[in-house]
Amino acid sequence: MRTAVLREPGRLDIEDRPRPDPAPDEVLVAVGEVGICGSDLHYYEHGRIGDYVVENPLVLGHESAGEVVAVGERVTDLEPGDRVALEPGVPCRRCAHCKRGEYNLCPDVTFMATPPDDGAFAEYVAWPADFAYRLPDSVSTREGALCEPLSVGIHVARRAEVGVGDSVLITGAGPIGLLAMEAVRSAGATDIFVSDVVDAKLRRAEERGADATIDPTEEDLGAAVADATGGEGVDVAIEASGAKSAIAGSLDAVRRGGTVVFVGLGDEAEVPLDVLDIVDNELDVRGSFRYRNTYPAAIELLADGAVDAAGIVDFEADLEDTDDAFQRAMDPETVKGMVRIGK
Amino acid sequence: MRTAVLREPGRLDIEDRPRPDPAPDEVLVAVGEVGICGSDLHYYEHGRIGDYVVENPLVLGHESAGEVVAVGERVTDLEPGDRVALEPGVPCRRCAHCKRGEYNLCPDVTFMATPPDDGAFAEYVAWPADFAYRLPDSVSTREGALCEPLSVGIHVARRAEVGVGDSVLITGAGPIGLLAMEAVRSAGATDIFVSDVVDAKLRRAEERGADATIDPTEEDLGAAVADATGGEGVDVAIEASGAKSAIAGSLDAVRRGGTVVFVGLGDEAEVPLDVLDIVDNELDVRGSFRYRNTYPAAIELLADGAVDAAGIVDFEADLEDTDDAFQRAMDPETVKGMVRIGK
Amino acid sequence: MRTAVLREPGRLDIEDRPRPDPAPDEVLVAVGEVGICGSDLHYYEHGRIGDYVVENPLVLGHESAGEVVAVGERVTDLEPGDRVALEPGVPCRRCAHCKRGEYNLCPDVTFMATPPDDGAFAEYVAWPADFAYRLPDSVSTREGALCEPLSVGIHVARRAEVGVGDSVLITGAGPIGLLAMEAVRSAGATDIFVSDVVDAKLRRAEERGADATIDPTEEDLGAAVADATGGEGVDVAIEASGAKSAIAGSLDAVRRGGTVVFVGLGDEAEVPLDVLDIVDNELDVRGSFRYRNTYPAAIELLADGAVDAAGIVDFEADLEDTDDAFQRAMDPETVKGMVRIGK
Amino acid sequence: MRTAVLREPGRLDIEDRPRPDPAPDEVLVAVGEVGICGSDLHYYEHGRIGDYVVENPLVLGHESAGEVVAVGERVTDLEPGDRVALEPGVPCRRCAHCKRGEYNLCPDVTFMATPPDDGAFAEYVAWPADFAYRLPDSVSTREGALCEPLSVGIHVARRAEVGVGDSVLITGAGPIGLLAMEAVRSAGATDIFVSDVVDAKLRRAEERGADATIDPTEEDLGAAVADATGGEGVDVAIEASGAKSAIAGSLDAVRRGGTVVFVGLGDEAEVPLDVLDIVDNELDVRGSFRYRNTYPAAIELLADGAVDAAGIVDFEADLEDTDDAFQRAMDPETVKGMVRIGK
Repeated sequence: MRTAVLREPGRLDIEDRPRPDPAPDEVLVAVGEVGICGSDLHYYEHGRIGDYVVENPLVLGHESAGEVVAVGERVTDLEPGDRVALEPGVPCRRCAHCKRGEYNLCPDVTFMATPPDDGAFAEYVAWPADFAYRLPDSVSTREGALCEPLSVGIHVARRAEVGVGDSVLITGAGPIGLLAMEAVRSAGATDIFVSDVVDAKLRRAEERGADATIDPTEEDLGAAVADATGGEGVDVAIEASGAKSAIAGSLDAVRRGGTVVFVGLGDEAEVPLDVLDIVDNELDVRGSFRYRNTYPAAIELLADGAVDAAGIVDFEADLEDTDDAFQRAMDPETVKGMVRIGK
Repeated sequence: MRTAVLREPGRLDIEDRPRPDPAPDEVLVAVGEVGICGSDLHYYEHGRIGDYVVENPLVLGHESAGEVVAVGERVTDLEPGDRVALEPGVPCRRCAHCKRGEYNLCPDVTFMATPPDDGAFAEYVAWPADFAYRLPDSVSTREGALCEPLSVGIHVARRAEVGVGDSVLITGAGPIGLLAMEAVRSAGATDIFVSDVVDAKLRRAEERGADATIDPTEEDLGAAVADATGGEGVDVAIEASGAKSAIAGSLDAVRRGGTVVFVGLGDEAEVPLDVLDIVDNELDVRGSFRYRNTYPAAIELLADGAVDAAGIVDFEADLEDTDDAFQRAMDPETVKGMVRIGK
Repeated sequence: MRTAVLREPGRLDIEDRPRPDPAPDEVLVAVGEVGICGSDLHYYEHGRIGDYVVENPLVLGHESAGEVVAVGERVTDLEPGDRVALEPGVPCRRCAHCKRGEYNLCPDVTFMATPPDDGAFAEYVAWPADFAYRLPDSVSTREGALCEPLSVGIHVARRAEVGVGDSVLITGAGPIGLLAMEAVRSAGATDIFVSDVVDAKLRRAEERGADATIDPTEEDLGAAVADATGGEGVDVAIEASGAKSAIAGSLDAVRRGGTVVFVGLGDEAEVPLDVLDIVDNELDVRGSFRYRNTYPAAIELLADGAVDAAGIVDFEADLEDTDDAFQRAMDPETVKGMVRIGK
Repeated sequence: MRTAVLREPGRLDIEDRPRPDPAPDEVLVAVGEVGICGSDLHYYEHGRIGDYVVENPLVLGHESAGEVVAVGERVTDLEPGDRVALEPGVPCRRCAHCKRGEYNLCPDVTFMATPPDDGAFAEYVAWPADFAYRLPDSVSTREGALCEPLSVGIHVARRAEVGVGDSVLITGAGPIGLLAMEAVRSAGATDIFVSDVVDAKLRRAEERGADATIDPTEEDLGAAVADATGGEGVDVAIEASGAKSAIAGSLDAVRRGGTVVFVGLGDEAEVPLDVLDIVDNELDVRGSFRYRNTYPAAIELLADGAVDAAGIVDFEADLEDTDDAFQRAMDPETVKGMVRIGK
């Protein structure tokens, strides 16, 4: 089968590899579409993300969906012809985190496109059946692939405990910020403010229904939010940019007793935070890592038309053109590029 | 000022009463619209609800909004000309329930139109400023009045902890059922099933977006829900009819680990419930009583266009015609009648 | 190896069976002690519990601990010589319940001593390593076996969300009631009332620190609780008897906004409950089924001396005398009998 | 009546002031004992805490209990002779925070000994009856006064959602740290580690049952906690020192998915925190500000003997000697000094 392989930074080769066979609990999926994620781009550009180093040729891609073409002998609830979204992280199922249902925190997870585990820029993937979720007719294969970043948004909305009538600031209007916007709106948020430093992304947020947008290089983030909320601050801030100024600013933007969730990953670990503010205003500051138990909800939301995921896509490319697609995806105005492999 | 007064069951008289003066913490409100609630009808028909007996002439009505015409000396955040929705229950602010924020459980609440406290079928009401919520231009006075039943729906959705992607059964398509439907959808529910025994109400639910409707006199409620959910059952059932069969049936309709919330009040207190089902399937069965901290969210949802409250209204009448309006509201096909008093 | 086998109601035979071999993820445990549970007695007496019928010879016993004597090839965190408590229910690890961490609700669980799965009245049991929890030196093997009923108590305390300073009524002073008492006290409950109809069990509850005991055949349960709480009612009621009168009475005993958890299983499914009370007082009525993620906490509590589990034991017997032990355990004054098999 | 008044930094004068009269909803309390808090010392030493500046003579003291000697006309549930603990912060009862039960976040709170509101180093205080909690015979007046710092500990334990079997690190063994230790133990924590830089305080923590103590000047905090927890980290860290190294270290000390609560207030607001750690390990980092709805629980815990508050007291002094007592309380080895005014 054809695959796109990262052999060295900046170069994706199309290679033939043997088609995998599904294990007894697995399905074999003919991959339909795969999204290009910021982490794919980071590996492509730098050959590593933190401690994860690409030492051997690696197939990237972890936002995928496709069609089941074969099933292992113990699989009973999927059959060839079913279209499925693939949840890319499969946990150990045995540790205390897994048993508590916090499987996104499992230290022994197998995660697509994270060295040494290959990803989905390939014609076929064999994957545990219980991490392959059947798509109804009303959800396209593209939307199936986008269940992955949408899951990040759903998880962050859950971590933020967004409720009906809440006001929310989202810093960063990339794919995670924009899909977090969909998730918090579906959870009842009524006022959604979005900040970014790229004008095209702010316009994108506006087109997608942001109540107001803020360019922090032109106005003070905290002041702008205070203005927009009658001096109160928002109930929830979701930090999806990784920028130091946005991380610190998100704490200023929330009301007393409010919640800040960090989901964006920046280059520097240490950021000065106002601890007196956290105490005096009794803030909740939470991390949000990947997602858990989100795929069924993502598919329900998409089937219901309650969220728009496909609208974040800027372009699609064929598998043969994956390298070009990565180049194009690195443009700061691009939100999401897709690679089409099958149907 | 003119008021509609219940002097004996079945008879509402239009009477003049002195206009109240606002206390230092109160606002004086020229009432605009008042909804007719099932409890108003119950007092009208029977002269009592349980232990609450109408012994002296009583002004009914607790779903109201209007315009501030005067403010007490300590009121700083409202002024004449502001339109406001009135939250009809004012708690003691001092008991353990109030301090915990569960003020709907305060035993010393003053509640409009509950003997001996008068309600809002009157030209003017003086009311604590902090239970009068300013309406933005985008929310009509009628919608302001409907914040009351919408609050019941929001509270029941919170008690049910409805989340994104949840499936919900609502038994009873009266005003509470229909507004609970709005509330759970705004909280992320994607599949909403509604049951009722009145065909017109089921059609109403369909028009308002129910994914399926069920007439339990024609098909088995539990079986119909099982069919609609692939045998799983719904995540949440909201019982808004008070009917014994619906109360018992709601427990059958939820999935293992699901939640049932009772908000409907029937005539009989005792209903046989399947306790083994509650234990074996680890159900949560919760009561929902009135609401707390819902008005700001209700107004936000209405201002955002996220819910439709006004669409449940069947007719409006003038204050002079309140008695006729009550007669008309007693038709089982009526969902909601409004009395217009001011603007 | 020697086992105690139920071939027909009322008769446990000691039989030789082949010693099992551990699978790659399993440990082989030389069983030390096994508690006799009410469900074991029910199978012994009636040959069935509801739909679970003993059609083939069955080894009973699911409250067990022992010593690891061999480990499968993939087991890395246990070794021969470790003493372990065995959690008797192993779920499928793949369904939505398991992924959410609610593995006690998994429909495909394998549970010891539930037909057709054998239990622990045997010299050896092979069991998944991740459901075998190492015991520190400060926790005896007997206490390890009692982690099972203690887990039921911990889970019910969690389901009740017992917090510091709470008052709790426990109806039923059998092993579950007495160990729920330990669990709620360790979670901060300060006033604990216990009811039972067997005088010896009430004395047992008193000796173990109940603040007051109630015999509902001699005084009204609701009235007694009201007296003891200044008319308020308790924060939490835990129904551990399965008796219809206690089920209904537990609702009367809680304060407005209080929580009732049913854990006891009676013979009849349907019990008339006061639904108006549930609504008006906004009660939470919850089922509690077995337990999840409790063994580590149980072992910590035992190691810390924070709870007393071994004190509920009335007698111990050898494996050869299991039938006698069952006869003795059926005495209504017996709380817990143990069968000693190894060390 | 006699009072101790702060007129300028470093000087407390004993002065006569008129005895207050209770308002209709207030009780007049003959103060029995008052604790000296770190904030009292800070005002005494510096004349200010952040934006709160002592511009007029101020009576300090907010940890108090005493005996009711008169009641206002609307007070029905207290009477002369009752001993009461006084909750020192009385909120507005009207804002959104108060209505939600988060009254500790009310921006219009009246708080004893916070300029311009006087405190309790006085023979009499008039105080709202619903913030005066009756003490049972089993709780001493001293313990009543210590309900205030114990409340801080209970609130932090609630914010941390400590449950049975949890392991907890507490950084800082002053009164808050030591009483947080009592609170988390009463909530079920089984392993409690305490760090401080003052040896006498570590010994105090040990005497009061800490499982291990850590001097971060002698060993690395994170490494010591890792050692003590088998490499896992604690479930919960409570930062009660305000020291920058402890703030950063508390994040390192918790397990993946763990919770850190900041309650200590240091001199510098900004502290570099590892945001990647918060995201990757999905930490919860929460502020804890004063307390809400804790006094009833504090009194129940004390009455039950479940916590030891009086054991943190080092010395007591008479009102006349308040200035000396403050000098003595400034010794870093002192945990808590009390001023005795009445009985």
